Amino acid sequence: MMAADKADTGLPMYPATIERNPPVIDKVLQYVKDNGNDYAERLKDFLRIPSISTDAASKPEMDRAAKWVADLLSGCGIKTEILTTDGWPCVVGDTGPVDGDGPTILVYGHYDVQPVGDESLWDADAFNPVEVDGKLVARGSADDKGQVLAHLLAAEAWMKTVGKMPVRFKFLVEGEEEIGSPHLGPLVEKHRERLACDYVVLSDTCKYNPETPAITYGTKGMIYKEILLTGPRNDLHSGSFGGTVANPGNVLCQIITSLKDANNRVTIPGFYDGVQPLSAEEKSMIEALPFDEQGYQDMLGSPGLDGEAGFSTLERRWVRPTLDVNGLFSGFMGEGSSTIIPAKAGAKVSMRIVPGQDPDKIADAFDAAVKAATPAGVRLEIKEHARCAAYMCPLDLPGLAAAKSALEAGFGKQPVMIREGGSLPILPMFKDILGAETIMIGLCLPNCNAHGPNEFFHLSDFEGGIRTAAHFADLLAGS
Amino acid sequence: MMAADKADTGLPMYPATIERNPPVIDKVLQYVKDNGNDYAERLKDFLRIPSISTDAASKPEMDRAAKWVADLLSGCGIKTEILTTDGWPCVVGDTGPVDGDGPTILVYGHYDVQPVGDESLWDADAFNPVEVDGKLVARGSADDKGQVLAHLLAAEAWMKTVGKMPVRFKFLVEGEEEIGSPHLGPLVEKHRERLACDYVVLSDTCKYNPETPAITYGTKGMIYKEILLTGPRNDLHSGSFGGTVANPGNVLCQIITSLKDANNRVTIPGFYDGVQPLSAEEKSMIEALPFDEQGYQDMLGSPGLDGEAGFSTLERRWVRPTLDVNGLFSGFMGEGSSTIIPAKAGAKVSMRIVPGQDPDKIADAFDAAVKAATPAGVRLEIKEHARCAAYMCPLDLPGLAAAKSALEAGFGKQPVMIREGGSLPILPMFKDILGAETIMIGLCLPNCNAHGPNEFFHLSDFEGGIRTAAHFADLLAGS
Repeated sequence: MMAADKADTGLPMYPATIERNPPVIDKVLQYVKDNGNDYAERLKDFLRIPSISTDAASKPEMDRAAKWVADLLSGCGIKTEILTTDGWPCVVGDTGPVDGDGPTILVYGHYDVQPVGDESLWDADAFNPVEVDGKLVARGSADDKGQVLAHLLAAEAWMKTVGKMPVRFKFLVEGEEEIGSPHLGPLVEKHRERLACDYVVLSDTCKYNPETPAITYGTKGMIYKEILLTGPRNDLHSGSFGGTVANPGNVLCQIITSLKDANNRVTIPGFYDGVQPLSAEEKSMIEALPFDEQGYQDMLGSPGLDGEAGFSTLERRWVRPTLDVNGLFSGFMGEGSSTIIPAKAGAKVSMRIVPGQDPDKIADAFDAAVKAATPAGVRLEIKEHARCAAYMCPLDLPGLAAAKSALEAGFGKQPVMIREGGSLPILPMFKDILGAETIMIGLCLPNCNAHGPNEFFHLSDFEGGIRTAAHFADLLAGS
Repeated sequence: MMAADKADTGLPMYPATIERNPPVIDKVLQYVKDNGNDYAERLKDFLRIPSISTDAASKPEMDRAAKWVADLLSGCGIKTEILTTDGWPCVVGDTGPVDGDGPTILVYGHYDVQPVGDESLWDADAFNPVEVDGKLVARGSADDKGQVLAHLLAAEAWMKTVGKMPVRFKFLVEGEEEIGSPHLGPLVEKHRERLACDYVVLSDTCKYNPETPAITYGTKGMIYKEILLTGPRNDLHSGSFGGTVANPGNVLCQIITSLKDANNRVTIPGFYDGVQPLSAEEKSMIEALPFDEQGYQDMLGSPGLDGEAGFSTLERRWVRPTLDVNGLFSGFMGEGSSTIIPAKAGAKVSMRIVPGQDPDKIADAFDAAVKAATPAGVRLEIKEHARCAAYMCPLDLPGLAAAKSALEAGFGKQPVMIREGGSLPILPMFKDILGAETIMIGLCLPNCNAHGPNEFFHLSDFEGGIRTAAHFADLLAGS
């Protein structure tokens, strides 16, 4: 059936290329349409729960948010349980086996949110959602309550209209994503049979731009280190003692500088081992994306763009490993001057790595390179804050085709395939434990202020997301 | 007269090499001896005035301290005046012309003190002087109230016993040394005739070690800069945007590193212009000094000693220019990790320069070198906090011989000649405006905690200082 047939519902028209099962999906989409206002109110309800996972005092709110999710799932007949962990609880659900041999999907999301941060930067209370120009502004609106809810409401629409989902859906909604998911790996390991699936699906990434939905098929891994140098026992008078001891501040700069060359290539031995050249297919995909260098630079408010020589901005952003200072400190940085040789200096340094790079080898190679660059006049300590691998979803994964078509159906525009420079440690974890690839369907905007003040989610993207998720289930059954 | 003749006074014996004017100096020294206890009490009185020049609220105490000094001078017949400035007042005194053709001396000192700092680190109230094992512990005891008072009390001893001083003495005791003497230059310029002298004498430096008095004949100059780099408008997510913009933290490290080479030599073009090689005389003087490398390293609590290749520790400390980071900051340095490309990075960097180096040329060359090392992807701002020249007193200055003999007489041990890595901007100022060299007679110990908690001054060094100053006047008359 052709897209034109849908005009009477007001939903985006189907592209001619997409085969559907009209009597069934139409009922689901009509239900979605009829409940549009109710959905916005329910999202507001969800957003009013200040489920801040970084704050131990959030326990009642974390429990409330987990129960809110569980009630939604169980309320439409999905078998649901709240699993306790040594941290925050985790909601799991399962539609149970279905007829036919479609794939089993595990929808992943999180009900926890970032702290509010500086309240004075918010235009309204972070947990009192307000609609502004079609945007719902509240902490967690985009990351991730709004996005995960789109999937839950699509499932509900299927359950309430058809009484079942067309393929088996499982749900895993955790409360620790914003604190690094410390208990999720053990939980998935423990419940690996129960969570077994063909694909994980998540919506915790972005559209490419306001007009263009996107599927993210790769994320970078990360190794996050902290270097601490100690020189003299106390800060010393820089006149009386300067020139006689190694200055930890100068030495720190030397060490950091030694880690990259003039072409912005990382000099740590073995750092690029395993990095694959970009395939012709990916290269042309990236080159085909509309990308406005000046607009990007303006968005960042940077005096210029810079990075590893020989690669385009999007290549550097998505497919090339990086090494960045995240913080530096030493000595006196108040107003005016203090004439000291600082006793200490420190830096936080993170590396974003790409598929093929071994995080363990690179973590060790970093330590060795830093040690080699440290002179005898200072003591060195290295701490590690994070270590995870990159993730890349095979571009020929069958489920990706259904996801693309679902986005096209849900948003009325073909999605683009993109990568992401950020890191999602859960992706290699799902791959390792469940053997499942993850399909990342981005619904929010890149500038949605996730983690910042005035985080927002367009209600039209919320609705597009619900339609997309509804179609996705439909299309998987037919795939 | 020989030193043995002094045994009955208990004062240090005169070395056989020193010619004196026994009837006169003996009377002065006896007066000094008879007043020893009274001197300690008077120093405690002076120390009880919290004349903290950094604190605008100190006005009554600053006035009190200036008056305390003025009263002492005028109380023994020295013509004295308190000069107001746009900052704190300055005490000037003058014995008036004397018979004979000896040199005119300007005794410089300061009545202001550093702030107390962390009170919890003091064993007692900083302005309630206590005697502990022969040390007087109080803020300002060494820096500079105890040291300048030694000169004032020696003058008083001469005036009260002989009725005059053997050469013309002038006095200049300011209240702004600890805030960089902002009004001293203009005051000296305005009163250049009144302050005209052959030598400036000051005691605001140190002995070489507890047993060995010292004359400091050279200080380094200083240029103090602050580098501020700005990249993107805000801190950026290091995953989403890393690799596409210059990271101000990394760039800062590159800039700092570019300023020195692997031999710890400064690479700023022209930096070493004018630096003279150490004379054979100075080199042998420095090499002859007892110096315990391990003891020095232990004192600093440093894992090692380091600095410019090809020079000894004392040479690096005193006669070689240096470049040191005094502070660094960028991005996130709290507990744990924050994955950001910092929007800003900054460093405080000071250079200590030696005689022959032109501070103006070096300040400009620093700016040019930093600009040249800064890539287009960041904005650079450079601030300057200080700029002053080095100072070196000619080793053949006639007044130095009298000062050496006076120290030998006052302390019973020949002094050593040393330099100092710190900076005293007033020295080149005196040289420029008054055309006078400065003789620096150190009375306190290098570890006297000047500027720190539990600052102390040995009462035996205080008394030795009074004797030294009394002898100095005597010896100048005979020189």
